[in-house]
Amino acid sequence: MFDPACPSGVTPFRIGDKWAGMVVLCLEDGPRRFSELQVPLRGVTPKVLTETLRALERDGMITRTAYPEIPPRVEYELTPLGRTLFEPIAACREWANEHLPTLLAARESFDRAR
Amino acid sequence: MFDPACPSGVTPFRIGDKWAGMVVLCLEDGPRRFSELQVPLRGVTPKVLTETLRALERDGMITRTAYPEIPPRVEYELTPLGRTLFEPIAACREWANEHLPTLLAARESFDRAR
Repeated sequence: MFDPACPSGVTPFRIGDKWAGMVVLCLEDGPRRFSELQVPLRGVTPKVLTETLRALERDGMITRTAYPEIPPRVEYELTPLGRTLFEPIAACREWANEHLPTLLAARESFDRAR
Repeated sequence: MFDPACPSGVTPFRIGDKWAGMVVLCLEDGPRRFSELQVPLRGVTPKVLTETLRALERDGMITRTAYPEIPPRVEYELTPLGRTLFEPIAACREWANEHLPTLLAARESFDRAR
């Protein structure tokens, strides 16, 4: 029985969110600027990256630090809580490494049958 | 560097999808009918449950079997591929069990500051 009032549902979603997991991995070696995240995360739009960073900040996974410089510099950094995500992310990545071809074959076959 | 053409992003999303993970857990002990899934998954709408089941079927995680009876009976069952999801789902649940209060406290504090 899953209680709809239980917020546990929010978390797998955040971990599982396509870009959120990748952002966390991109911050593993230290703080990064917005533009530095756009390079490895090819294909993310600025809007989606902004939303992802904000959601991660809201959940206490990253900090956003604006340095009073000209031009302004903003850096994103994992918190200790954010670093705890490496373990479940690794489990999901291992799963994908092993089973993704089977999943994609199933999907292609399903779509062909329609 | 994440290749946007790489479909790995789709998988964590499916695992991480709030309802998909719960549906997989509900099917652990054997096949279930639509109405039998609605009981434990309180809060899911029929539309969302239908979409979730269809997406899981498309990805080869579950089978949908319609028995030619009156009234018609339809059952959903995990495939061997679907059963491989228990491991990453468990990792995400363990993470949530341990860290969800910290996440929710961060979220509340973030929202209060806005």
